[in-house]
Amino acid sequence: MKKRSDCPLSFSLDIFGDKWSLLIIRDIIMMGKFSFIDFSKSAEKIASNILASRLELLEKEGIIYKQVSPKNKSKFIYSLTQKGIDLQPVLIEMMKWGIKYNPETPEPPKKVIKKYDNDETSLYNEYLKRQKDVLEK
Amino acid sequence: MKKRSDCPLSFSLDIFGDKWSLLIIRDIIMMGKFSFIDFSKSAEKIASNILASRLELLEKEGIIYKQVSPKNKSKFIYSLTQKGIDLQPVLIEMMKWGIKYNPETPEPPKKVIKKYDNDETSLYNEYLKRQKDVLEK
Repeated sequence: MKKRSDCPLSFSLDIFGDKWSLLIIRDIIMMGKFSFIDFSKSAEKIASNILASRLELLEKEGIIYKQVSPKNKSKFIYSLTQKGIDLQPVLIEMMKWGIKYNPETPEPPKKVIKKYDNDETSLYNEYLKRQKDVLEK
Repeated sequence: MKKRSDCPLSFSLDIFGDKWSLLIIRDIIMMGKFSFIDFSKSAEKIASNILASRLELLEKEGIIYKQVSPKNKSKFIYSLTQKGIDLQPVLIEMMKWGIKYNPETPEPPKKVIKKYDNDETSLYNEYLKRQKDVLEK
C-alpha cells in the first residue's frame, strides 16, 4: 500500500480508515465472533463483498490471521495478531466518544466500555478464552 | 445521517470513518492550520472536492465551526468545538499504533506524541493559543 505521508495518523488511516474494518476487529475482540458468517450477521449488515475485501486487507496487513476450524473443516476462524490486539485502545476511545455524543446509546455498551476502560487486560483475557473455546476440537 | 446500529463504535465510524476527516482534525489541533488553503497544502494532498465535503460534514455534525477571518474577510477560520476537541484521545491512540507499526516513522512525531500522551492538556492549551493568534485582528 502506498503511504500518503510519514504521519503516524495517516499510516493508521491508510489501513483501517473506513466504516467497516474496526467493526470487524470489534466483532472478534468483544463479540465472540470469529467467522465470515458471524461477521456478516452483525447489526450493521456488512455486504459480503465488502466483508471479504476487508478481511483480505486486514490479513495482508498482519492484523488478523485465519485457521481452519477444527470443528468444521470448511470454515475459517479469524483471530487477532498482536498488531490487531493493539487496536484495543483505539476502539475504546472511539466508543467513549460515541457514547458521549450519541444520547441514544443504550445502557449495556456504556457499562461494558466503562469496565474495559478501567481494566484493559480483562477484555484481552476474555477474548483469549473465547478464542480457545472456538479452536477446541 | 442514518445510524447503522446502536453501537457507539459504529456511531463514531458513521461520522469520521474515512481516510480524511481525522487528518483535518489533526491539522487544526496539532498543526496550527485553520483554513481551507492550509488543509489542502498538507502532505497527504487532499483533493479540493473531498476537503469541501468533509468540512461540510464535520460542521454539520458539530465537530468544527467556521468564522470569517478578522484579517481577511474572504477567508474562513475553522475551529474545533468541544465535540471536536474530544477526539484528541482517538487521534493519540491511532498515532501510537501508527508509530508502533510503521518502522519508518520519523523521530519528530514520536517525540510529539510521547509528550501529548503524558500531558493531554498541553496539546489543548497550545491549540487554544494558536487559535487565538489566528483570530486576532
